[in-house]
Amino acid sequence: MKLVVINPNSTQSMTDKIIASARAAAGDHVEVIGRTAHGAPASIEGHFDEVMSAAHLMREVQQAEASAADAIVVACFDDPSIGACREIATGPVLGICEAACKAASMIATSFTVVTTLPRSVPIIEDLVRKYGLDHQCRRVRSAEIPVLALEEPGSNARQQIRDEILRAIDEDKCEAVVLGCAGMSDLTEWLSRETGIPVIDGVTVATKFAEALVGAGLKTSKIGAYAVPNKK
Amino acid sequence: MKLVVINPNSTQSMTDKIIASARAAAGDHVEVIGRTAHGAPASIEGHFDEVMSAAHLMREVQQAEASAADAIVVACFDDPSIGACREIATGPVLGICEAACKAASMIATSFTVVTTLPRSVPIIEDLVRKYGLDHQCRRVRSAEIPVLALEEPGSNARQQIRDEILRAIDEDKCEAVVLGCAGMSDLTEWLSRETGIPVIDGVTVATKFAEALVGAGLKTSKIGAYAVPNKK
Amino acid sequence: MKLVVINPNSTQSMTDKIIASARAAAGDHVEVIGRTAHGAPASIEGHFDEVMSAAHLMREVQQAEASAADAIVVACFDDPSIGACREIATGPVLGICEAACKAASMIATSFTVVTTLPRSVPIIEDLVRKYGLDHQCRRVRSAEIPVLALEEPGSNARQQIRDEILRAIDEDKCEAVVLGCAGMSDLTEWLSRETGIPVIDGVTVATKFAEALVGAGLKTSKIGAYAVPNKK
Amino acid sequence: MKLVVINPNSTQSMTDKIIASARAAAGDHVEVIGRTAHGAPASIEGHFDEVMSAAHLMREVQQAEASAADAIVVACFDDPSIGACREIATGPVLGICEAACKAASMIATSFTVVTTLPRSVPIIEDLVRKYGLDHQCRRVRSAEIPVLALEEPGSNARQQIRDEILRAIDEDKCEAVVLGCAGMSDLTEWLSRETGIPVIDGVTVATKFAEALVGAGLKTSKIGAYAVPNKK
Amino acid sequence: MKLVVINPNSTQSMTDKIIASARAAAGDHVEVIGRTAHGAPASIEGHFDEVMSAAHLMREVQQAEASAADAIVVACFDDPSIGACREIATGPVLGICEAACKAASMIATSFTVVTTLPRSVPIIEDLVRKYGLDHQCRRVRSAEIPVLALEEPGSNARQQIRDEILRAIDEDKCEAVVLGCAGMSDLTEWLSRETGIPVIDGVTVATKFAEALVGAGLKTSKIGAYAVPNKK
Amino acid sequence: MKLVVINPNSTQSMTDKIIASARAAAGDHVEVIGRTAHGAPASIEGHFDEVMSAAHLMREVQQAEASAADAIVVACFDDPSIGACREIATGPVLGICEAACKAASMIATSFTVVTTLPRSVPIIEDLVRKYGLDHQCRRVRSAEIPVLALEEPGSNARQQIRDEILRAIDEDKCEAVVLGCAGMSDLTEWLSRETGIPVIDGVTVATKFAEALVGAGLKTSKIGAYAVPNKK
Repeated sequence: MKLVVINPNSTQSMTDKIIASARAAAGDHVEVIGRTAHGAPASIEGHFDEVMSAAHLMREVQQAEASAADAIVVACFDDPSIGACREIATGPVLGICEAACKAASMIATSFTVVTTLPRSVPIIEDLVRKYGLDHQCRRVRSAEIPVLALEEPGSNARQQIRDEILRAIDEDKCEAVVLGCAGMSDLTEWLSRETGIPVIDGVTVATKFAEALVGAGLKTSKIGAYAVPNKK
Repeated sequence: MKLVVINPNSTQSMTDKIIASARAAAGDHVEVIGRTAHGAPASIEGHFDEVMSAAHLMREVQQAEASAADAIVVACFDDPSIGACREIATGPVLGICEAACKAASMIATSFTVVTTLPRSVPIIEDLVRKYGLDHQCRRVRSAEIPVLALEEPGSNARQQIRDEILRAIDEDKCEAVVLGCAGMSDLTEWLSRETGIPVIDGVTVATKFAEALVGAGLKTSKIGAYAVPNKK
Repeated sequence: MKLVVINPNSTQSMTDKIIASARAAAGDHVEVIGRTAHGAPASIEGHFDEVMSAAHLMREVQQAEASAADAIVVACFDDPSIGACREIATGPVLGICEAACKAASMIATSFTVVTTLPRSVPIIEDLVRKYGLDHQCRRVRSAEIPVLALEEPGSNARQQIRDEILRAIDEDKCEAVVLGCAGMSDLTEWLSRETGIPVIDGVTVATKFAEALVGAGLKTSKIGAYAVPNKK
Repeated sequence: MKLVVINPNSTQSMTDKIIASARAAAGDHVEVIGRTAHGAPASIEGHFDEVMSAAHLMREVQQAEASAADAIVVACFDDPSIGACREIATGPVLGICEAACKAASMIATSFTVVTTLPRSVPIIEDLVRKYGLDHQCRRVRSAEIPVLALEEPGSNARQQIRDEILRAIDEDKCEAVVLGCAGMSDLTEWLSRETGIPVIDGVTVATKFAEALVGAGLKTSKIGAYAVPNKK
Repeated sequence: MKLVVINPNSTQSMTDKIIASARAAAGDHVEVIGRTAHGAPASIEGHFDEVMSAAHLMREVQQAEASAADAIVVACFDDPSIGACREIATGPVLGICEAACKAASMIATSFTVVTTLPRSVPIIEDLVRKYGLDHQCRRVRSAEIPVLALEEPGSNARQQIRDEILRAIDEDKCEAVVLGCAGMSDLTEWLSRETGIPVIDGVTVATKFAEALVGAGLKTSKIGAYAVPNKK
Repeated sequence: MKLVVINPNSTQSMTDKIIASARAAAGDHVEVIGRTAHGAPASIEGHFDEVMSAAHLMREVQQAEASAADAIVVACFDDPSIGACREIATGPVLGICEAACKAASMIATSFTVVTTLPRSVPIIEDLVRKYGLDHQCRRVRSAEIPVLALEEPGSNARQQIRDEILRAIDEDKCEAVVLGCAGMSDLTEWLSRETGIPVIDGVTVATKFAEALVGAGLKTSKIGAYAVPNKK
């Protein structure tokens, strides 16, 4: 199967990291194709960045569709424009927040999300509520790190994230932690080892869930809100 | 005060209708400035159209902000990209779905929304739930009319909408009806007379609520999710 | 238009303060008429006080109705007997808790309410849940001040409220604050300046929303729960 | 123990019926004292009637308290002013809607409420949601009967109620039915026989739950919202 | 009436304590019959223990039914297998979590549950949400005590529980406390005296509610989910 | 990887069907091992059957664990005893209701569940609410078929299910259908073709999700409610 993983921001190093995670997770029969939303903001930190990346994301989804992709992963934790992607895609489209939180709900009774900046906290809280998981989400926490700090070799971002997870375990009594940014994908194993709790990366899980839905023969429903866009 | 009312689709006749409603509602001290999102789709029917209008909408909001607008109304019932608009605006930004449903909840214990196409129903249901009004919203109904049919002089769209409202009163036992499309704005009075129930037009109410918030000295909060977008 | 603002307790100095706020907020075309519920308790601190003021409040609403009021504001944060007021009024009836919380939800993703006494906290939590805004309300806090302390010139009530707001910003990460008592109305501007966060006064907002609903041509729905009381 | 059962309307024949039900249900050791809220409306049909009976209800509760009542039942299905009653009572105070719906939730996974007039439907829906039982309440139905029709010997009210219950079983697939008016109390057994479903009368259940709470040594909590009213 | 109170674990000393509480609470006309689920785990600490006691619990319910029990109480705070018990019982079946939380909601606007082990916290949170009382439950707390420590004469379990209740009053601002384990039943009075807050024991309340439902003539509904199990 | 799929009832022909579906769905690297809960009831129709199968299910899970299973699927739509299974398993444990409904929520904005008997409807409604998906589940419908009718060659069960799905599309406006019984697994493709809507089989999806979670390196969290059972 052909899986297109789209980084909806324009930072290539982040795409590289994301694709590495997706490839590491994907089965042998899965061709993982990475795409960067060139022209989009360098990072998505809030609603405005989301909107400014949206048309670029659509273009990538349309190209994925033209190339007969079996499924699509949108690798930004704000799950930007997922409904629109689903309208133009035939196969399943997975957002990494939805995938990670639903995975968490299958292996733990509660989870905490650890994200980058405080301004993303209400956006993620809103998503979690939209997905109906607010009763299992103990808290959405920010490690107070700009997204691109995750790309800087010398930053102590990983330590800050680890410390925030340790606080989450202690204060929230959560049973799992969801990493609230695609750019944290490469830290998953290290964080899991350091903290002794299941740490869930949305890129990895969305890749596997995309595989799963395709393997189950499921496509996006086309008889309602996700029907092909009306011709204008 | 200066109020900018933006039609996020590119159909000028719809803007005209919307601005006429806004001007009719606005107080004497309010300068209503209409804007059309040129370049956007001709109508917004679903998530994809929403996304394809978003950057055009942002441009209009930025211009409104540059011209020192005191408040902004986004005149599409899907409340597209409202969070992003709030990040770049200083004053209040009102979506017409949020305004109309919250107004309904102040004059009735329950309401039904009557919109155009079936594909918009789940989008509006989602918005109503996001605003916490699902317990007061009896139902979201579609009159099975394409948005642009509302612009065609000879169409029987208004009759269809009236009939759907009558069914809503009978079947849903709703106490008010919210019109689920900016393009229905000019029908409000006629529909109210024909059906004998409060019929609520989002353009009118959003205009008045924008005036109200400005008059109350309130601006969009800038210390959290609606802070000015981060510089890239 | 004629707007009647009713203080449902019997403390005239509180009425004076409330009416000053309403007048300062109201548009030029609005005649604001203040009424005190003489015979009611001196302050409303809990369910019992609410009940003991109810018949007096009804009398004032009936007089407002007799004098052809276009809209009514009930200026007590417990939103006492609003349903009953709506049954006997033709125009819109606004409670200040509902108005303030709905305004907060239009300019911020979250808010905290700061009220007077601890015993009012569960009452306000109940109202917030009834209005469907519990997911946006971070917390209802008490500044541990009796209502009438707000009327004493020498009290340090305003400092206590400011400090509670500062704690709310720090601990709740709220994006706006709603003042949980009509008697705090005169402090709004000062508190807003001192704390740097939108501080929302229900009297002001309810006045503006009443104007807005009347301006939008909306009246209380009379086909259901708010129908004119049955003759006995 | 001494149980005071208060009819918050002024119709003596309704009090008689209510007290007969309470006495039939109460244990041998329970002295049931009936009280009528003389001065209140003849029936409670909506928010306004509720409010107009409130002060009369308070007077009866205060007398009950003065006479060392162990518990109080307020026999109107709108559960009027229960919070205020709890502030002035030492022992438990039961509303019949709360009691009946909570009883229903203990013997069935779902129930439907059958009440008198359509205007009471939204009030009861609100109560059911307040008690957290909306997920178990299939529907609130009106049999389209004025409250006092239940007092008229020749009326066919009982047949209408039976028919509405039969429709509820068929259409709502409910497992139990709650009678939504104190005045239906005497019909409980007949309706249960005629329909073959558990039919729950709030007067009976509230009487038994009051006994239960007193027997369990529980009194109304006095450290929060139900504390004794503040002295004025 | 005949009330069968079943301890679904196999610890006889716990049954003795439970039955003592039930007998102390039950009316003179109630014959309380205690049963121990011999063969079940010695205590129920988590889902697995629950499951391993289930068949033993069923056997006891079947025997109760065979002996014409009028009602059944299942005395474990996890409310194990209540749905199954209701299928095979004719009369009401009460779980002690449901009974205690619903009683709390009748005498207080909020409550906190204090249970034994941390692993039971999410199970109880789930139950509270299932019963629709999450908005009234401030928190579920663990006193970090194994269930059987409650049976050891020398343990300081009761002090730990008291201290946890005091913390709950201080931090949660709860108005009542529910004891989250049948084995705490004998401590109720002492804890109530020590903490000055209504302390609610599920065994006591379930006993009284069982009496109440039987006294109200109510039986488990047999037309839906609680119908007699299908023959195989 | 080794995946153990357990049929918690004792009907071998149903296990065969389930395992055929799981094998058809599973990747090449997955060894699917089928297990029947010998000693359990022949079908699970309600809470009692669930309980009577529970200990047998536990035995199978313990054997799976002993044989180093990487993941477990419990193939009954009531998701029986999943919490207990998770306590004793190291790897992920999937119930088919949870898996199917969460899959539906990824490819459609709404779904309807079509199950066998009416008595299972409230059980499934409860599960859907527990998983936080009640706002996406349009309705749980019964095709009025006993579970074992699905095993009878000559029955017209498949036609009845198809007809119920067609009614769901028409009346519920659902965008996908979830099959509410493991025994319907072999009908998935036929039903999907006949109805033109995504039809989701829990056995297939749970198999793929189990693979996905294992592939993502996730195991059941052992620091909270799913910790290994306490030794007795």
